[in-house]
Amino acid sequence: MTAGNGVTGTVGMIGGGQLARMTQQAAIALGVDLWVLCPDADEPAVRAGARQVVGTPDRYEDLLALAERCDAVPLDHEGPPPEHLEQLARDGFVVAPGAPAARLGRDKAEARAVLAPHGIPTAPWTLAADPQELLAFGAEVGWPLIVKRPSGGYDGRGVWALDGPEQAEGAFEGSDGPLLAEARIAFTHELAVMVVRGRDGETVTYPPFETVQVDGQCHEVFTPASVPAELDAEARRLASTIAHHVDLVGVMAVELFVTTDGLLLNELAVRPHNSAHLTIEACTTSQFENHLRAVLGLPLGATDLVAGGGAMINVVGAADGHDPFDHLAAALAVPGAHVHRYQKAARPGRKIGHITATGPTVDDARSTTAQAASALGAAVPA
Amino acid sequence: MTAGNGVTGTVGMIGGGQLARMTQQAAIALGVDLWVLCPDADEPAVRAGARQVVGTPDRYEDLLALAERCDAVPLDHEGPPPEHLEQLARDGFVVAPGAPAARLGRDKAEARAVLAPHGIPTAPWTLAADPQELLAFGAEVGWPLIVKRPSGGYDGRGVWALDGPEQAEGAFEGSDGPLLAEARIAFTHELAVMVVRGRDGETVTYPPFETVQVDGQCHEVFTPASVPAELDAEARRLASTIAHHVDLVGVMAVELFVTTDGLLLNELAVRPHNSAHLTIEACTTSQFENHLRAVLGLPLGATDLVAGGGAMINVVGAADGHDPFDHLAAALAVPGAHVHRYQKAARPGRKIGHITATGPTVDDARSTTAQAASALGAAVPA
Repeated sequence: MTAGNGVTGTVGMIGGGQLARMTQQAAIALGVDLWVLCPDADEPAVRAGARQVVGTPDRYEDLLALAERCDAVPLDHEGPPPEHLEQLARDGFVVAPGAPAARLGRDKAEARAVLAPHGIPTAPWTLAADPQELLAFGAEVGWPLIVKRPSGGYDGRGVWALDGPEQAEGAFEGSDGPLLAEARIAFTHELAVMVVRGRDGETVTYPPFETVQVDGQCHEVFTPASVPAELDAEARRLASTIAHHVDLVGVMAVELFVTTDGLLLNELAVRPHNSAHLTIEACTTSQFENHLRAVLGLPLGATDLVAGGGAMINVVGAADGHDPFDHLAAALAVPGAHVHRYQKAARPGRKIGHITATGPTVDDARSTTAQAASALGAAVPA
Repeated sequence: MTAGNGVTGTVGMIGGGQLARMTQQAAIALGVDLWVLCPDADEPAVRAGARQVVGTPDRYEDLLALAERCDAVPLDHEGPPPEHLEQLARDGFVVAPGAPAARLGRDKAEARAVLAPHGIPTAPWTLAADPQELLAFGAEVGWPLIVKRPSGGYDGRGVWALDGPEQAEGAFEGSDGPLLAEARIAFTHELAVMVVRGRDGETVTYPPFETVQVDGQCHEVFTPASVPAELDAEARRLASTIAHHVDLVGVMAVELFVTTDGLLLNELAVRPHNSAHLTIEACTTSQFENHLRAVLGLPLGATDLVAGGGAMINVVGAADGHDPFDHLAAALAVPGAHVHRYQKAARPGRKIGHITATGPTVDDARSTTAQAASALGAAVPA
């Protein structure tokens, strides 16, 4: 992969958003040439200097144009049809995490069905084809239910609650397929475990990150999580088990609920993930560098924390349409605050950046990120 | 500087080498658009995604084309004629560090002459116009002498020793001007202090870095330096004093000799510097981010170490022409080793990358970088 031309390898990503943008930063250090497949020239990764294949992942010829330039093509979002990925693999291209793992990342119901035999606990769930099946499931596990579109949702979109049987009929309005229904779980914490698996099966996990959601969207992340050490270890073990069973190559976020009865799988994201942005500053190797190392077949980097604690807060466009980064200087004046901008227009509720800090303790780190977010006037999403 | 378009500011740099490449990484986080002025499309910063103005800094129209795109133009090397920078400033463009500081960075004799009245100690020196003046100076301070071209040298080029009077005649061969001659100093350590000064005069310094040269080229850097704490403090004070007197804007490396009689100024580099590459991982804010913050008029970032110690080793092309990065995987397998590639062809003796590590102690960090450099077969330059 090194040929005396200064290049470690060439990697393609699908999508040109902030995940590809931060992967470009990691690619610069490693000497990796990064290509992204996306339609617009002003997308965050292209602005950051990633090379662009103009196109969309639903067109096989666009995916092929990307793959032909690259040693490996890892996914960045759930967009591409799995049959396209399978075709690329048949044509001899390296696609990471591979079509099976990508399919599970794309289909919440399939993920639950495939992982259940391997002892991965979830809330009671069903795939309901019509209101009658929802009613039957609600009668069995009790109301309210959480209902999700099996694929395509993120940041709380495509997920909603049904308070009682009277809402079952309306749940399918505007839906063109079955719905995943789950018993609503009483959880005390939400964790995300980032797991990385190399081409050779080498697997490492990051310390679990505790995530705080507001209106279904990730607002804050910190580590160490405020759960007992044995739950930390169990969460990492679960993530490694899942990585093994889906034959992961690259990074995957495993989102978990902490309940009084233990851990339950919530969602998988088979790509770099918002919950692990703090790995850039808080861990020896960032999720983005480890993603590149994994898909290129290189040894994985150490995942340990470089400080006692780390924290991150997302920066989102304000409800009134103003750009929090109008106050960038005030945030940069907070000692130890690391500001990341994605160069996206500040539409209300849209993630346009994040702030990370480390500190001797997790509370120190959270205090720094809170101060900087407050300086931006962006502490909590609208 | 923020206009709701996701851009913090636009910065131009002169030169497209590794300093601009690593500045591009910092620019991505801050949402800064970086432009570089350089002749070739395969230079390290362009490969990393910085936008390019094709040209060279000796042509005023090329500098102007760069300046017209940017909020500020900081230097990256000593290339541009000072009169061009002065013209840009007269035309209303922001040039950092500004023509006076750039002139001192370019002219070693002028730097000594300008700084001496401010109590900045140097070795005894003279500007010798001919062999007779060299002989007189050698008779005064004793042989051997160190002789330097006043401008244009780096990595030990343009610097050599004269063992005795019999070599004075030959010293001027191939030289088209006076030579800077210095008494050879018995030093115990070499330090580099990175100082950053904002547009408003806010000044911060990094912990002093100890540098180890091999054949006049920087080989290894580590911090904390192995000198008493009072020398650390004195070194930082000297660097701040110089920054004030040259009206610095941006970053500057102040290279110092530690002698039994105290500190002596060796050289200034008015730009990001090899000795401070370890700031990317070892300090809260990298030299590259602080350079951007300074020239854009933003608050400066914290410069404290994030670990007990940090270390860096340069990776240079091997004498036999092979590329040390052929063994990249072996270096990446060393836990905690951060590998930086510049995507330059591995010509013998050429800097093509570096390795950084942090650790609980400076010895831990040095041990990690040494292991990774050894894995590359690149521990010591040829």
